[in-house]
Amino acid sequence: MSEPLILITNDDGITARGLNALAEAMKNIGRVEIVAPDSERSATGHAITLTDPLRVEKVYRNGELFGHAVSGTPADSVKVAVKAILDRPPDLVVSGINLGPNTGVNVIYSGTVSAATEAAIMGIKAIAVSLGTFVNPDYTAAARYATWLAEKALSHPFPPGVVLNLNVPPIPESEIRGVKLTRQGQAGYEEVLEKREDLRGKTYYWLGGELLISRDGEDCDSRTLDSGYVSITPLQFDMTSYPALTELKRWGLESGDREPMENR
Amino acid sequence: MSEPLILITNDDGITARGLNALAEAMKNIGRVEIVAPDSERSATGHAITLTDPLRVEKVYRNGELFGHAVSGTPADSVKVAVKAILDRPPDLVVSGINLGPNTGVNVIYSGTVSAATEAAIMGIKAIAVSLGTFVNPDYTAAARYATWLAEKALSHPFPPGVVLNLNVPPIPESEIRGVKLTRQGQAGYEEVLEKREDLRGKTYYWLGGELLISRDGEDCDSRTLDSGYVSITPLQFDMTSYPALTELKRWGLESGDREPMENR
Repeated sequence: MSEPLILITNDDGITARGLNALAEAMKNIGRVEIVAPDSERSATGHAITLTDPLRVEKVYRNGELFGHAVSGTPADSVKVAVKAILDRPPDLVVSGINLGPNTGVNVIYSGTVSAATEAAIMGIKAIAVSLGTFVNPDYTAAARYATWLAEKALSHPFPPGVVLNLNVPPIPESEIRGVKLTRQGQAGYEEVLEKREDLRGKTYYWLGGELLISRDGEDCDSRTLDSGYVSITPLQFDMTSYPALTELKRWGLESGDREPMENR
Repeated sequence: MSEPLILITNDDGITARGLNALAEAMKNIGRVEIVAPDSERSATGHAITLTDPLRVEKVYRNGELFGHAVSGTPADSVKVAVKAILDRPPDLVVSGINLGPNTGVNVIYSGTVSAATEAAIMGIKAIAVSLGTFVNPDYTAAARYATWLAEKALSHPFPPGVVLNLNVPPIPESEIRGVKLTRQGQAGYEEVLEKREDLRGKTYYWLGGELLISRDGEDCDSRTLDSGYVSITPLQFDMTSYPALTELKRWGLESGDREPMENR
């Protein structure tokens, strides 16, 4: 195989240190191209920009082209990269390194994951990488594990429509206890909606909260990360609840050709 | 059971005709409260607003309180409604009626679905309602089916963490052929990224495209809707790909206590 083309993106924006650490590490295993949002787009979920034009600006560092900044979401960045910037489809998209874990319900809010999901929808191998802390981040171990997983992903047949969601604990590499395949936790947030008054006496609210991981099983991403292991969760974009589909059959919802609603 | 409390929201904004039609219909089966974004938030995915304050404004129609407009996303609106506006948690959240289908990969971009997902995360029964057209919408049939499904949902035990994704074809009610339980289709978009120049000669792009439903099976939401049936898909927010989890076991990724990465 010729040198793999690796697209690096994120949701913290093209100036984020986590993206830089990821791009540097990936240069050891392939040709790296960076296309990322021009500013922070955290908690954007899987948003795409339909109502505004998308701008693309070249970003230079030390006189050399560093990457392309897109005036849109992480998912927009992947679309624009593949359709308008890269000379061929990338062999792998790696999104991150996110400042903060993407585990449990966080996954569905995550711009980092959504960029990888967009790649998966386009049929491209995709990895999302997050570091499990919001403070004093050291991206060394996360960048090393991302490169290790990227090599595995490039050399194996990849399950179609799947994103590998990699979460690395915020501890020195020598203290990381190992790697586990996990499932997405379901623990919700202990949410806060704080009510405040602005300088004109008008009410506004701030959203915040903390993830409650204690309700998750030991095989979940959150608990695994919390006990010092690297967590890898395969995610898909088929959100169908197959167990619920079976359960709903018993509600008697289905009906045949033009049977009126009243008879159902 | 006392009169159920039904929260109505959407992603097309509080002034949308589809929301009005839905709220009017729901008044037949319960007490209705409206809390919705103050402007259109389509294709916002499951975004939440962490970096800006959220404003809430009362909206009046004909001198009476119509609902509350939130300066945020559909998911924000549900959070704010439950945490700050309603006097008790709603028995049901219904999001819609969306102008345009929410089937296939659309589901992961959908603000309409994301509002319902937010409710499901909070442990509230939730329905997303969409009409399968973007032009000349007649919401009559969709509002009727939404009310019918809402009554079923209120009277049955609801699978936890599940959203019922209802899509109604854009044809007169008498021509609707029936109701089917479906799974989310996986067909992607035939995407367009159109390159243009602004008046100052600078390049910008527009995103657009058309859903390719032909690749989906007959049991999928898109094909079902297209053949004149009402489609109901149970969705969940556990995105774990369990088949991929089995497949990945064969990659030899997992490792135990402090085994160095090199040996893996």
